[in-house]
Amino acid sequence: MTIGDELLIGQVIDTNSAWMGKELNARGFDVKEIVSVSDQKTPIIETLERLLSKNNIVLITGGLGPTKDDITKKTLAAYYDCSLVENTDILNHLKKFYEARNRPMSDTAYEMSLVPEACEVFINQKGTAASMWFEKDGKVVVSMPGVPYEMKDMMSRVVLPKLSEVYETNFIYHRTILTAGVPESKLAELIDDIISDLPNGISFAYLPSFGKVRIRLSGRGEKGIQNQVDLFTEKVKERIRPAVFGEDKEELAAVVGEILAERGLKLGIAESCTGGFISHQITSIPGSSRYYNGSVVTYSYEMKSDLLDVAPETLTNTGAVSEETVKEMAQGAIATLRADYTLAISGIAGPGGGTAEKPVGTVWLAVAYKNGDQIDIKTKLLKLTQSREINIPLASNLALNFLRKCILG
Amino acid sequence: MTIGDELLIGQVIDTNSAWMGKELNARGFDVKEIVSVSDQKTPIIETLERLLSKNNIVLITGGLGPTKDDITKKTLAAYYDCSLVENTDILNHLKKFYEARNRPMSDTAYEMSLVPEACEVFINQKGTAASMWFEKDGKVVVSMPGVPYEMKDMMSRVVLPKLSEVYETNFIYHRTILTAGVPESKLAELIDDIISDLPNGISFAYLPSFGKVRIRLSGRGEKGIQNQVDLFTEKVKERIRPAVFGEDKEELAAVVGEILAERGLKLGIAESCTGGFISHQITSIPGSSRYYNGSVVTYSYEMKSDLLDVAPETLTNTGAVSEETVKEMAQGAIATLRADYTLAISGIAGPGGGTAEKPVGTVWLAVAYKNGDQIDIKTKLLKLTQSREINIPLASNLALNFLRKCILG
Repeated sequence: MTIGDELLIGQVIDTNSAWMGKELNARGFDVKEIVSVSDQKTPIIETLERLLSKNNIVLITGGLGPTKDDITKKTLAAYYDCSLVENTDILNHLKKFYEARNRPMSDTAYEMSLVPEACEVFINQKGTAASMWFEKDGKVVVSMPGVPYEMKDMMSRVVLPKLSEVYETNFIYHRTILTAGVPESKLAELIDDIISDLPNGISFAYLPSFGKVRIRLSGRGEKGIQNQVDLFTEKVKERIRPAVFGEDKEELAAVVGEILAERGLKLGIAESCTGGFISHQITSIPGSSRYYNGSVVTYSYEMKSDLLDVAPETLTNTGAVSEETVKEMAQGAIATLRADYTLAISGIAGPGGGTAEKPVGTVWLAVAYKNGDQIDIKTKLLKLTQSREINIPLASNLALNFLRKCILG
Repeated sequence: MTIGDELLIGQVIDTNSAWMGKELNARGFDVKEIVSVSDQKTPIIETLERLLSKNNIVLITGGLGPTKDDITKKTLAAYYDCSLVENTDILNHLKKFYEARNRPMSDTAYEMSLVPEACEVFINQKGTAASMWFEKDGKVVVSMPGVPYEMKDMMSRVVLPKLSEVYETNFIYHRTILTAGVPESKLAELIDDIISDLPNGISFAYLPSFGKVRIRLSGRGEKGIQNQVDLFTEKVKERIRPAVFGEDKEELAAVVGEILAERGLKLGIAESCTGGFISHQITSIPGSSRYYNGSVVTYSYEMKSDLLDVAPETLTNTGAVSEETVKEMAQGAIATLRADYTLAISGIAGPGGGTAEKPVGTVWLAVAYKNGDQIDIKTKLLKLTQSREINIPLASNLALNFLRKCILG
């Protein structure tokens, strides 16, 4: 349960719950529900009662600050029918905290030392609001600060280890296969029979995003389920091998980078319709300078000719969005960017610029690479969507995947 | 209500609810609860019943994909006690969708055309999964796709306008002032006295994001509050004028673009540490080719010399991250990119590459522009954070804002 009006009016995105869900899940705790409610007594109490009626553990973040709208402590004291009392450990912590910052401790700050009598207190080593652990009728409620790094420290250092002491958990095991270039419906057709055969205890999900699809298999129960999950993961991977670029949290741009780095190859990028987004993806990876030289973003005919040596006749005869133009872009980029491999892209991102022959979403890709004394080039045509905000990341992911496949041969 | 195991195990952060909360709030709807539940019939039905018992409207996202783990449609059909039937509009949409992509429509894809008989259907113009609107006993349930851009299109185009037709809401009026380059704490000092004087019924928030801060004033109640909000908004703007780049949803890159377009100027960009992200921001704006020629991303010394004519001695003597180097980058880009204005940036994004003298987060900016026969150059030093993922968007926003202020003079 996350508490705060700022969540309900969308001023703040609740990232705490996802982080907690991941950590809890990894330790075998089953997260049944994530809920955000207002800074008010009634919804907090109602939600707490409801969640406790169906679950063993309720973790609460937020509403512990010193300002008026933070009422979590008062509400928990009312729920556990006890009063707020001064806690000496918190008080000492607050005194040190303000001393270290050369700031006087205000009355508002003093309030932070008051906690419900019924709880065990954990000092916040990253801030001022302490955490509170309540245990009653075999059920645990923990209230933590809403500031993400304070919550994360408290969870990692105290709450997760203590929960694992109090409760025995199910074994949970996940594998996530990362794919690109093949849509969810097509993947589903390819592996339908494998999925139908999944034994009890293994669940399955597709998570699509801009030309990439993550396929997740999750096993729970006895430790033996791990072998089953591994077995079925390998079966799925085998079936869709060409689409698979990695596992777990690997980034497509990092995977491409590793392949280049291993082979000692340098990459250059010539972008038109993606306007720098592919370069941004590549350079988001720390250490990308090992395999990445640079890019040109050529939005005009002149830039394509000046920087990539695209023949003006090619542009006049075939247009900027054509197989011939991207080929010349990729080839020119080998020299301009002193690269072994180049990726070139030109297309119509939209909303304007489409024609009957080349509608919005038409995109040409080319990959050029040095093969001895000559330069080899591969091309690919994409037909994407009507939307600029989709086409840019979609084309970029598909382009990086095309590059990956070209390098792997 | 967002549906999906991936939310509970923290594989995906629920950003939909915050976006929806913001939009609903802006139209006078009060969001009481945000909840994420599993892809299973029982929690979906229980949550739906509970939410409907206390609220007028329940908006659902997720669980509409073509694959087996998506059971929202079946569950809603069960809840409304009706069967799934083929919808001709969806079927035609799917046929067109697959035709446009030159892909056959599979049986799995066909399933997308089945919807509960009890609902009104809205076609998904950004994808395949249609939205469903249920109305019963004066209460509305809407099921939308979980893919954020599909949900956003559906909400903006259909659901929000229709909700405003069905329900009468409180009058709410917002103004949002967009600022860049001045941190929240400094803005707070500048306008503290104005904010202290805000009358009842007007609330106030700072929304910071990567070097930009949005300042929002919201009035609710009677229609007369609008004048009050306008009055205080103008007071705030007057006080912090140099930091203000726009209002409402204006993009900094679009504001810069409009200034260039109005003056008939062409922009070129030379990026190092931001690796293409500034170019991406500029080219995310439709029609940016009116004022944008192109970019170079120069990650190596060689590229800086080859493409931007930076003197090798400058690089050797002052390093890639220095005032002298960015000046030469900006100057060289005027010729290379045939531009009237150029923006150059070079810095240490991290995590590696920092030194005692130039720690991670050190970034130099330069803006060059043609002034008659000569080229004038302005520079600025930024000292940012330890984190690459923060430094890239932060440096990009501050660079665009520096460019904006240089052009405005």
